[in-house]
Amino acid sequence: MTTISDPATLDPAAARGLFRAGTAVPTAGWASGYTQANLIAVPADWAYDVLLFAQRNPKPCPVLDVTDPGSPATVLAPGADLRTDIPRYRVWRDGELVDEPADVTGVWRDDLVAFLIGCSFSFEWALLAAGVPLRHVDQGRNVAMYLTDRECRPAGRVHGPMVVSMRMVPTDLVDTAVRESGRMPAVHGAPVHVGDPAALGIADLDRPDFGDPVVGEPGDVPVFWACGVTPQAALMASRPPFAITHAPGYMFVTDVRDEEYRVG
Amino acid sequence: MTTISDPATLDPAAARGLFRAGTAVPTAGWASGYTQANLIAVPADWAYDVLLFAQRNPKPCPVLDVTDPGSPATVLAPGADLRTDIPRYRVWRDGELVDEPADVTGVWRDDLVAFLIGCSFSFEWALLAAGVPLRHVDQGRNVAMYLTDRECRPAGRVHGPMVVSMRMVPTDLVDTAVRESGRMPAVHGAPVHVGDPAALGIADLDRPDFGDPVVGEPGDVPVFWACGVTPQAALMASRPPFAITHAPGYMFVTDVRDEEYRVG
Repeated sequence: MTTISDPATLDPAAARGLFRAGTAVPTAGWASGYTQANLIAVPADWAYDVLLFAQRNPKPCPVLDVTDPGSPATVLAPGADLRTDIPRYRVWRDGELVDEPADVTGVWRDDLVAFLIGCSFSFEWALLAAGVPLRHVDQGRNVAMYLTDRECRPAGRVHGPMVVSMRMVPTDLVDTAVRESGRMPAVHGAPVHVGDPAALGIADLDRPDFGDPVVGEPGDVPVFWACGVTPQAALMASRPPFAITHAPGYMFVTDVRDEEYRVG
Repeated sequence: MTTISDPATLDPAAARGLFRAGTAVPTAGWASGYTQANLIAVPADWAYDVLLFAQRNPKPCPVLDVTDPGSPATVLAPGADLRTDIPRYRVWRDGELVDEPADVTGVWRDDLVAFLIGCSFSFEWALLAAGVPLRHVDQGRNVAMYLTDRECRPAGRVHGPMVVSMRMVPTDLVDTAVRESGRMPAVHGAPVHVGDPAALGIADLDRPDFGDPVVGEPGDVPVFWACGVTPQAALMASRPPFAITHAPGYMFVTDVRDEEYRVG
């Protein structure tokens, strides 16, 4: 049996190769420095509504690439196959989750258009580099994500609430976190809210809708960023006949370096 | 006869009111500080290809808003009417320019989807504020625009070359111009090229494809930015059955302040 090397030091193609071969684990910390992306694939006749929804809601839905109908290839990772190279998928019918396989070759369709959406993992390296601790990473947990009471601007048949990710940030580093993430508008940008969860309609920080609860340190403030799981919440609300997404936390690892999405 | 006040000090609604009433002049310098936008309206069955073309070519085609089919309203300027509030339009049939009216109410269609695309006027204030002179403004001319030999990434039926705008910049201010425009990715961002026009396939700077030739001062370098006229060049190349655009230089004046598109 071979030993898997440190996932952080793998190059993206090697990471995708392991996922293609059946390794089905969350991708946080894998292929450090390379952008990870959310996947949402819908039939072509829903593609305009999804693309317009993303254009109208760029903070939660920053589009990094859109494929041609039926194609499992993306410019973000030449040679990759979107049907096999994500460690875990979700398959949706009429807005209901029906399966969570590690490969979707068998259910892929010739009319599927795949959207690759930016992920907050991309700005986390910038937070760390600026001295902002990542509590969920230190605690070995998935980031905490919440449905909010803020409706996205709808587009045709696609509508739904904004989903946010939350990080506990020391009060004196909130300005740093805002500035650093604000320089990366292609991967969610600056926070949408700092402080009171109730302002976003979040009743209990200890009960996230996706991911794991995260414990803050004394003096920490909850900081909320628009989250790439928002299109999945829109799928659940808008009920297209068929869709494939990644499973939350099990992202597509691209060949693009995070710095390429940094502005200024 | 009433006197028109200084166009620069007009608020956007007042400027649009004058255009609606028949004033048909270029909008450079009007409603200073407010974002101006390129218009391209196509039938709904072409909208996905146009939106995807814009997504795939964000530097020349930064989308600021997309309307619902048939609607002449935009969130960028509540109360405005896209059929009347631009000083001059272009009407296209099968990729051919057929009319340049000051009002398109009579040819508007219920299936038209309008795209409002960012304009380099929005970063010019930032260049000026940073001390970069604008030769074309000083010379009272429209900015010079050129077709290049760089093909945009195509999307469905939509394809065409990138169009660039060119500004003559003093050599020691090129870094400032790059940095300041780079902070505004929603309105074309950093230049695509500095220096040799031949590198973009431009044979003669004195013969722009759109706008006016501009004279440089000794020590100036030509600096090229991706240009919002690119979608018009794509229309000419891709020949949708019908389209309406603004006339180059006769832009849509929005209620959004230019600073809102600045990052970091």
